[in-house]
Amino acid sequence: MSKEETFQDLSLNPPSGKQDLWRWLYTELRGAILDGRLKPGARMPSTRSLAMQYSLSRGTVVVAFDQLQAEGYTRTEVSAGTYVASGVPDGFLPTTRRPAALALPTSKAALSKRAQQFLKDVEVMPVSHSIGKAFRSYEPAIDLFPVDLWARVASRVLRRAPRSLYAHGNAAGYQPLRRAIAEYVGASRGVHCSPEQIIITSGAQQALDLIGRFILSTSDQVWMEDPGYSRALQTLRATGARIVPIPVDEDGLIVKAGRKLAPKAKLAYVTPANQFPMGVTMSADRRLELLRWAASANAWIIEDEYDAEYRYFGRPVAALQTLDSCGCVIYVGTFTKMLFNALRLGFMVLPERLVEAFTSARTLVDLHPPTLDQAILAEFITEGHFGHHLRRMRQTYAERIDVLKTAADKHLNGVLDVVHAGAGIRTLGWLKTWKSDHQAAQQAQKSGLEVTPLSLFTTKYDQPPALMLGFASCNPAELRRGVSVLATALRSR
Amino acid sequence: MSKEETFQDLSLNPPSGKQDLWRWLYTELRGAILDGRLKPGARMPSTRSLAMQYSLSRGTVVVAFDQLQAEGYTRTEVSAGTYVASGVPDGFLPTTRRPAALALPTSKAALSKRAQQFLKDVEVMPVSHSIGKAFRSYEPAIDLFPVDLWARVASRVLRRAPRSLYAHGNAAGYQPLRRAIAEYVGASRGVHCSPEQIIITSGAQQALDLIGRFILSTSDQVWMEDPGYSRALQTLRATGARIVPIPVDEDGLIVKAGRKLAPKAKLAYVTPANQFPMGVTMSADRRLELLRWAASANAWIIEDEYDAEYRYFGRPVAALQTLDSCGCVIYVGTFTKMLFNALRLGFMVLPERLVEAFTSARTLVDLHPPTLDQAILAEFITEGHFGHHLRRMRQTYAERIDVLKTAADKHLNGVLDVVHAGAGIRTLGWLKTWKSDHQAAQQAQKSGLEVTPLSLFTTKYDQPPALMLGFASCNPAELRRGVSVLATALRSR
Repeated sequence: MSKEETFQDLSLNPPSGKQDLWRWLYTELRGAILDGRLKPGARMPSTRSLAMQYSLSRGTVVVAFDQLQAEGYTRTEVSAGTYVASGVPDGFLPTTRRPAALALPTSKAALSKRAQQFLKDVEVMPVSHSIGKAFRSYEPAIDLFPVDLWARVASRVLRRAPRSLYAHGNAAGYQPLRRAIAEYVGASRGVHCSPEQIIITSGAQQALDLIGRFILSTSDQVWMEDPGYSRALQTLRATGARIVPIPVDEDGLIVKAGRKLAPKAKLAYVTPANQFPMGVTMSADRRLELLRWAASANAWIIEDEYDAEYRYFGRPVAALQTLDSCGCVIYVGTFTKMLFNALRLGFMVLPERLVEAFTSARTLVDLHPPTLDQAILAEFITEGHFGHHLRRMRQTYAERIDVLKTAADKHLNGVLDVVHAGAGIRTLGWLKTWKSDHQAAQQAQKSGLEVTPLSLFTTKYDQPPALMLGFASCNPAELRRGVSVLATALRSR
Repeated sequence: MSKEETFQDLSLNPPSGKQDLWRWLYTELRGAILDGRLKPGARMPSTRSLAMQYSLSRGTVVVAFDQLQAEGYTRTEVSAGTYVASGVPDGFLPTTRRPAALALPTSKAALSKRAQQFLKDVEVMPVSHSIGKAFRSYEPAIDLFPVDLWARVASRVLRRAPRSLYAHGNAAGYQPLRRAIAEYVGASRGVHCSPEQIIITSGAQQALDLIGRFILSTSDQVWMEDPGYSRALQTLRATGARIVPIPVDEDGLIVKAGRKLAPKAKLAYVTPANQFPMGVTMSADRRLELLRWAASANAWIIEDEYDAEYRYFGRPVAALQTLDSCGCVIYVGTFTKMLFNALRLGFMVLPERLVEAFTSARTLVDLHPPTLDQAILAEFITEGHFGHHLRRMRQTYAERIDVLKTAADKHLNGVLDVVHAGAGIRTLGWLKTWKSDHQAAQQAQKSGLEVTPLSLFTTKYDQPPALMLGFASCNPAELRRGVSVLATALRSR
């Protein structure tokens, strides 16, 4: 093969400057082999001619050739030179001359049918490029989180961490963090458990996902509060289980309705401390009734406590788990609402007989949680910063709901009847002049407010039109501004 | 009710000192109500008598009473006192007098049948309390990871992070990290993709889990390399899919066998750069054959590159993804083997048409990856530390496999024929005098060595007896010590 032929035939694309030169040459030559510019059995151009033509060092060309050889695109015959391997492009007809292109039809491979179905409903929350906007409901007060303190604790933990913390970690979670959490839930939530019953998760969401996947079989029935937390519903439904919406009243989930609608359900999902989104506390007799049903039906209960720490009248209500003498309650907690969302750490308190299985299940899902983050959080808790932050936030949020309520009573009178939430980081406002909370929310969103219609959380049992308003994440000025904007939006129709 | 009766009847357990006094009293009184020591309709002891008897302040007793009232255990009649609520313990017969105990039968609720079945096989790796032990195979050189540098980068990132990084993050991953990874895989692995095609995961394990769950339907067939990575097998099997083991030879997965055994499989799992555990590189014609099959069968391919960066002869082999013109390859990478295990960050490069669905799927599983960790890693990459570390480790591991091979040739001659691995962080040693690698591994484990029998990774196609030996995680002295201990162990039978 003459130099001239080589120069004409290959017409390689010029190097992009982003890759090493040897990799560029390798990719281009491979492309030429794959699309037939260099045919099976053909002799490869000499390293010398390629080096000359493309102003490369011989060494660079040799590296590219070695790579083609190593990957089987070429073969070398001693003292005869290098040839394109015979089998390689067999069956591939060149339809394009783009480097490395194989002429394959575009794949029609798809997601599973079921995934296509249920992923349609899943709403991806936007990234928070800003914080503190009225009336974002899924963030705590990021404006008041002690970021400098967190950075200092983190720096100290990282400076002192033994190298073993960088190695493979505990599937159930970092032991000192499990101990710190066991102590915290014992003292603050009345939950009695050993550190061994605690599995660290990447937030409550992962806990719900793990429970759903490993406890539910296809077609099992699940009691879900209606209205209720839609992301829990979607996650549990993704397992193939059948969701049975159970109505909620001022005492929480109506257990009698559940008993009637799905007496043999395998799981009940409840938010007893502060029902999402209605904000009611499950009454003592409902709690007992629920446990009694679960014991008789051999069902599990998920107790999701996402913001029970924030209670503005009296003390936080004790967890349902504290009444569980039959070992059917899985308590789910998260630090995302108590500290900050981006942390992605939460936990489950499991009945003892589930611990081993869930530790195994966890290794299939993501091996173990990130150890350094857990070490930082453990230090933050044991040094008392966590408790201090919670106390401070409890007071701050109590003030913020007061600000919201006062401003709403003044400016939204007759339009939106805002509930003076007794707990949590969000509340409801009942719409007085709109029939569709969906339309009202859209109107508010057009004015740049973040509000969610209550109807988004109902499945089967309609509620009067209402808007969900987050108050914990916004400072007083922003809350007042938000109320004023909302008043204009809801009155302009 | 006289003071004396009160004192006798309630017999509360003494405070433990761990809880607030009000919570202790509340818990004890609630226990008394629930087990019938205080019966429905009975008058509650006076706050004064309780304060006297247990040396509490009246304020403490009042807080406990308020809580019981708030939770519905008691009711107060104006100027008549506080009574135990009538409905509460209805149907609960006291069988125990432990506080807060409800007499419920122990629950027989269970995991789903399928989970019980497959979780049996899952091995939970022990926590690494020590590092660098011969011959651990799942850790890189933690002893040489620049922990001080990592801590400094982390401190700087945390000090400068805007508050919005503490808020809700991007479900697909932190954008600057996605950009850094797109650049890295383009330059180093030849993978062409936009940052939008990259989804950050908590390690390769989560990527495999996500792909399996959302791509596979029950009873779909999956090609798995045999021998192959058992944790991938377990994860994909957990979806309910049927695993079809496909034999592997010196050119990698035997595509013809796959075509024959399961021509309509939905997914093929392969490790083309450095087959796990055989260490072979998939040849060019096998790669093309695999892609051609996938295109015709509308199947997906998972390309799992867990340690392709570490190649000791020639350059790293280009990714299979670079040949994919039909959009069926999902490339899975991880930082746990390139940096350190505890980091728990990895990524997928997705064909464009999967991006939206996988972003949704991800929110159901754990909302989003921890943002601050991602910001630290992004900085570590863009400052060049990542590339530097990889180059350094490539040299170190090449030295370490030399040390292992030299020592083994000297001391294990005739007993174990150690392969001079050309890539990766582990190698195989073929047993010359043992018929069962399982027994040989047990013998070595008794001497404190970490070795894994090859047979652990075979499903259907037997291999000659061999041991898997990690060499990247151990320093030369430990490798030599390990070889000496192993020689004694394997010869003493």
